[in-house]
Amino acid sequence: MAFDLTIDDLGDLVRGAALLGTGGGGDPEIGRALVAEALRAHGPIRVLDPSELTSDDLVIPTALVGAPSVLVERLPRGNEPIDALRRLEQHLGRKATATMPIECGGINSTIPLYVAARLGIPVVDADGMGRAFPELQMETFAVYGVPGSPLAIADERGHTAIVQTGDDNKKMESWARAITIRMGGVGYIAEYAMDGPTVQRTAIPYTLSLALRLGRTIRTARSNHRDPADALRDELAGTLYQHGAVIFTGKVVDVERSTEGGFTRGSARLAAFGSESTCVIEFQNEYLVARVDGQTRVLVPDLITTLHLETGEPITAESLRYGQRVRVFAISTPEVMRTPEALATFGPAAFGLAEEFVPFEELAAVAAS
Amino acid sequence: MAFDLTIDDLGDLVRGAALLGTGGGGDPEIGRALVAEALRAHGPIRVLDPSELTSDDLVIPTALVGAPSVLVERLPRGNEPIDALRRLEQHLGRKATATMPIECGGINSTIPLYVAARLGIPVVDADGMGRAFPELQMETFAVYGVPGSPLAIADERGHTAIVQTGDDNKKMESWARAITIRMGGVGYIAEYAMDGPTVQRTAIPYTLSLALRLGRTIRTARSNHRDPADALRDELAGTLYQHGAVIFTGKVVDVERSTEGGFTRGSARLAAFGSESTCVIEFQNEYLVARVDGQTRVLVPDLITTLHLETGEPITAESLRYGQRVRVFAISTPEVMRTPEALATFGPAAFGLAEEFVPFEELAAVAAS
Repeated sequence: MAFDLTIDDLGDLVRGAALLGTGGGGDPEIGRALVAEALRAHGPIRVLDPSELTSDDLVIPTALVGAPSVLVERLPRGNEPIDALRRLEQHLGRKATATMPIECGGINSTIPLYVAARLGIPVVDADGMGRAFPELQMETFAVYGVPGSPLAIADERGHTAIVQTGDDNKKMESWARAITIRMGGVGYIAEYAMDGPTVQRTAIPYTLSLALRLGRTIRTARSNHRDPADALRDELAGTLYQHGAVIFTGKVVDVERSTEGGFTRGSARLAAFGSESTCVIEFQNEYLVARVDGQTRVLVPDLITTLHLETGEPITAESLRYGQRVRVFAISTPEVMRTPEALATFGPAAFGLAEEFVPFEELAAVAAS
Repeated sequence: MAFDLTIDDLGDLVRGAALLGTGGGGDPEIGRALVAEALRAHGPIRVLDPSELTSDDLVIPTALVGAPSVLVERLPRGNEPIDALRRLEQHLGRKATATMPIECGGINSTIPLYVAARLGIPVVDADGMGRAFPELQMETFAVYGVPGSPLAIADERGHTAIVQTGDDNKKMESWARAITIRMGGVGYIAEYAMDGPTVQRTAIPYTLSLALRLGRTIRTARSNHRDPADALRDELAGTLYQHGAVIFTGKVVDVERSTEGGFTRGSARLAAFGSESTCVIEFQNEYLVARVDGQTRVLVPDLITTLHLETGEPITAESLRYGQRVRVFAISTPEVMRTPEALATFGPAAFGLAEEFVPFEELAAVAAS
C-alpha cells in the first residue's frame, strides 16, 4: 500500500534500518538529518507500493557506496546522490519516475528518501538486498538478471563517472569501488535502472515499510515494558522474514576493525554473563557470520543484529564498544534470497567463508537439541 | 608538412619513439605489430600538419594507460582504443575528424596510428608531452588550459567508463588509474578532445615526424659507422629540443623495479668503465632524474635516455639488464615545457623530487667547469 512518509516516521524508520543494516549499512542517523531537512523544505515523501508500477516507469535506485568507518568522518554535502541520478538520467536520455533503495538497511534506506524529497519524485517500497550487503553486485536485481550498469557515481564536487560493464556486475562493483577509494572512501551512485515489471520480478517488496514497522516495534515494546526481542520475533512472523531469535547475550570484550580495500573489516568478541561461553561475529561492513563457542550459528545472507540489552536499540559494528551489554538477534532472510543463484551471489562463499549456508532456524534447532 | 606513413617507416618511428619514451612509455615494439597489421589491411596513414587543422576539427587523442611491466604480459587485443574513442564520440555526440598522440614516446606513439589506420582518419603530427610521462594530467594540453575529461576508458571486453572531473585533471588521472588497476594494470583511453586552434595553441608540434627522424638518424649513423650520439646531437640542434649530450657511459650493475599503484617504479645503477664513477637513474615508468656520483645531471622534464653503447639503440627501463653497456644521453625539453606552469605540472616536484629544475645544458656546463 502506498503511503506518505512524514518527519514523524523518521525515528522509527531509522531504527528499523539500523536493524536491517545487520551491523553495517552506514549509520542511518547521518541519513536521518539529510532527510529531515529535505522533508521540512519539501513536505512528505510518497512511498509507492511496487505493485503500482507499470512498464512506463523508470525506477533509478540511488545509494551511497563506501566504508562506514569513513562515512562518519566525511558527511555528505547533499547534492551528491542528486548528481549521480541526474548523470545517469542524462546518459539514459530519460527522467526517473521514481527512486528506490538498493538496500533496506543503514544509511541507504534514507538516501533515496532524500533524493525523492528533493526532486519531488516517489520512492518505491522495496529494495534489492532485503538487508544491507557490502558490494554492489550483491543484489536480488543482479541475481535475477538485471544489469547494474550503466552506473553513475558522483563526488561532493559534482564530478562523475559512468561505468558500463554490460552484464558483469562484479566488474561494475570493482570499478566503482576503485573510484570510491580515490574519492576518499565515500561516493554516491545511481544504478540498476529498471522498469516497473522488473522491480516487481526482482526486488524484495515492502522493505521500507518493514524498517518503519520494526523500528516502531522496538520503540513501543520499550514503552510497554515488553522485551523488544520478543516483540520483534512476533512482528517478523507475519513477514517474508518469518523467523527471529536471540542467539547470544553478553558483553562486548573485543572489537577489531580496519579499513581495507574500501571496506570496514573486522570481528567482535562477546562474553556471556555467568558462563565461559563466547560469541565471535565477523564483518565486512555488515555482519557475516556469528559463531558461539566455535559453532556456526548464523551465516550470511541470514541477518545478524546486535541489540542493546536493555533498550533493544540496534548497534552497528561501527558503534560496538568494549563493555556494551548486547543481545545477538538473528533474522531469517526471505526465501528468494536463499535460492542457489542468490547464495552464489551473496552466500558465505561470496565472502570467502568456507561454510555451506544453512538457515539459521535449522542451526538453532541443532544447537538446542 | 602532411605526409603518408607507410609500413617502411615503422622501424624508424618505433626506434625514435623508444628514444622519446625516456626509458618508459611502454615498449613501442608491441604497438609496432598492431600498426603493421593495420597498415597492411588498410593502407598508409595520413599524418596531418597541425597547422592544417581548423575550428571544425574534432581531434580526439587515444592512448594506452598502465604500467609498462604489465603491458609486456598483457597484449592488446586490438579493439580497445577504438572502443574508447567510440565511447567518447558517443558521449560528445560528435565524430572525431582526427586522432593524436598524448605522448610521443613509447607505445603511445603507435596507438593513435593504429586507431587512424583502422578507422580511416588522419593522425595529427603533434602530442601533449613532447616525450613520455607517467600521468594523464602531465600534458601541455592541461598546462595551457585544456580539460582532459570527459575521458573514456575501455578494457579488452569492450567495457567502458566515462570520467568527468571538470577541469580537475589530477582527479581524472586518479580515477582513470584506479580503474586501470582494476582492469589488471592496462587500459585504453580517449581524452583531451579539442578543436584545431586548441591543438595549435597547446600541443608540441611535429613530434611524430621527430620520432621518425631520430629513429632514422640512429639507423643511418650506424650504417655509416658514425657515432649515433653525435648524429642525434646534430639532428636535435635543428628542432625544438635543441641540445643533446652523453652524460655517462658505463655498465648496468643494478636495476630495482616494482609495480606500485599502477606504475613501474625503481632505479638503475650504472658503473663507469675504468673509474669509480657511478650513475643512478630513478624512474616512475619514465626516467625522472640522473645523478652522477651523487650530483644531479638531468632532471625531469628534460629527457634521459639509455642507448646501447655500440648500436645506439634506445633501451627502456623495462629492458635494462645487468651487464648491459650503455650511454646515458640527455635531451633538453622544448621551452614551452620549461615554463613555471609547465614545471608545476611535470617538473621535479610533481614526482616528489626535492631539486629545483635546472636545464640539463646548464648542469652540464657546471659539471664540465
